[in-house]
Amino acid sequence: MIRIIPLRGMPIVEEGDDVGRLIVEAAERQETPIEDDDIVVVTHIIVSRAEGRVVDLEAVKPSEAAVRIAAYTGKDPRLVEVVLSESRAIRRMAPGVLITETRQGFVCANSGVDKSNVPGETIVALLPEDPDESARRIRKRIEELTGKRVAVIISDTHGRAHREGEINVAIGASGLEVIRDRRGERDLFGYVLQVKRTAIADELASAAELVIGQADEGIPAAIIRGYTYKPSETSRALELVRPRERDLFL
Amino acid sequence: MIRIIPLRGMPIVEEGDDVGRLIVEAAERQETPIEDDDIVVVTHIIVSRAEGRVVDLEAVKPSEAAVRIAAYTGKDPRLVEVVLSESRAIRRMAPGVLITETRQGFVCANSGVDKSNVPGETIVALLPEDPDESARRIRKRIEELTGKRVAVIISDTHGRAHREGEINVAIGASGLEVIRDRRGERDLFGYVLQVKRTAIADELASAAELVIGQADEGIPAAIIRGYTYKPSETSRALELVRPRERDLFL
Repeated sequence: MIRIIPLRGMPIVEEGDDVGRLIVEAAERQETPIEDDDIVVVTHIIVSRAEGRVVDLEAVKPSEAAVRIAAYTGKDPRLVEVVLSESRAIRRMAPGVLITETRQGFVCANSGVDKSNVPGETIVALLPEDPDESARRIRKRIEELTGKRVAVIISDTHGRAHREGEINVAIGASGLEVIRDRRGERDLFGYVLQVKRTAIADELASAAELVIGQADEGIPAAIIRGYTYKPSETSRALELVRPRERDLFL
Repeated sequence: MIRIIPLRGMPIVEEGDDVGRLIVEAAERQETPIEDDDIVVVTHIIVSRAEGRVVDLEAVKPSEAAVRIAAYTGKDPRLVEVVLSESRAIRRMAPGVLITETRQGFVCANSGVDKSNVPGETIVALLPEDPDESARRIRKRIEELTGKRVAVIISDTHGRAHREGEINVAIGASGLEVIRDRRGERDLFGYVLQVKRTAIADELASAAELVIGQADEGIPAAIIRGYTYKPSETSRALELVRPRERDLFL
C-alpha cells in the first residue's frame, strides 16, 4: 500500500528560509516523521520563494515587444516582460494564452510565472533557476537532519496537449530514477514489453497533488510512503523534457 | 491521508467475466473491502478482455493501406489494420511510431491497441468500445454488490507531447467530476485563482499506476481511499479530450 501524507501547518516561506528543515519539522510536528525511502514532493512555489525567485511587477519596465504581446494576449505588459525574460522560445500566443519554452526547457503557460500563493497584488513567483539543483539541496538537507535516505520532487501544475485540464508534473527531482524503463521486462503471460518507459516522477507529482490541491489551508508539500523507487544520484527531472525535434506527439 | 491499495490475486479475466464482482471479491479476500467514497481504478486491459475486445491477428487480412503504413513504420500489417479500424485519424507516422486519434477521441500510440498482458502470441486487446459506459457499468455493479457509493476510473498508459515517458490517464470514468474547476477559489493570500482546472481523474489514474505498474504479479486494479471527490452522475472521461482546434499546446 502507498500512503500520501499531506504536510500541514508549514509557515509562510520567505526568502532565505531552509525548506528542508521546514519539511522535517512539519513532518515531526504532525507525528509522521520522515522515514527511509520516503519521497517528499514540494510545490515549486515555496522553493521559489525561499530562493528569492519573486518579482514585483511595479519594478518592471516592459520592452516594446512585451507591450505588443501584452496587447495581443490581453495580459499585463509587465508580466509579459517577466515571462519573456524567463523563456527561450514562444511556442504559442492567443488571446489569454502565452505558452513558452522556459529557459530550463519546460513547455508551459507563462514560463511558469505564477501569481497565486504569493503575497502582494503585484508580486509574482518565477520557477527556481535550476529545479533539479534545488531538489538536490533540499534532499541533502533532509537527509542531514534526519539520517534517512529520501527522494525529493519539485512539482508544478502544467496544461498539456490533447487533453483538458492541468496535472502536476516534476520540474525538479533528486534521489530517484525519474523514468522507470520497463523495456525487456515480461508481462503476465511472458511477453517481453517493447516500449514501456513510465514517467514515475510525473506520476508521483500528480499523486501528491491529490493532497496538495485539496487544501484551502495551503498544503505545500506531501510525503509519499511505500512506493519502491530506484535510487539514483544522477537522474534529474530534465530527463523528462522531450526535445522538440523528437516530439512525435506534436 | 490518501491510501492507494493494490488489488492482488485477481484471476485472469476472460470474456463475459463480471469485472465489478471480481473487484469486490478481491478487495474482500485481502481484507480491504470496498468502502463508501472509494475510487476504484481499473486498467482497461481487463475491461477489454471481459468485453471481448480482443482480436487474433491470425484472422486479420490487412488492406493495401495497412500494408503500406506497415512497411513505413516497420509494424505488423495485421496490427496496423486493427489500429486503423480503431482510429478516426492518423496524427503521426514514423519508423516505429503510429500515433492516431481513436474513434473515442483519444490521441495515443496504435489507437491503444495493446499486445501486453493478453495471452497468445498473436492476440491483441483493443480499447473498450465506450470506456465511460464500461466504467458506469462496473460502478453500478460494485455499488449493487456492496451497498457503498464509489467512483470508477478506467486507465490506460499514454505517451504525451513535450515530455518523455508515459503516464496513466483516465479513458473512462463514472461517479465523479473528472475536472476540478478551481476558478473563483481563493489562494492562501486571498487572490482569486484565474485558470486552475485540475484534471483530477488523470491524476488519480497516475496515482493508481504507482501500485499497478509496480507489479510483476499483474495487479490490474487499485482502490484510492481518502480522497474527497465531487460525486457526479453525468461527468465522464471524454470531457478530458481536448478538441484539436482548441489545442494550444500543439
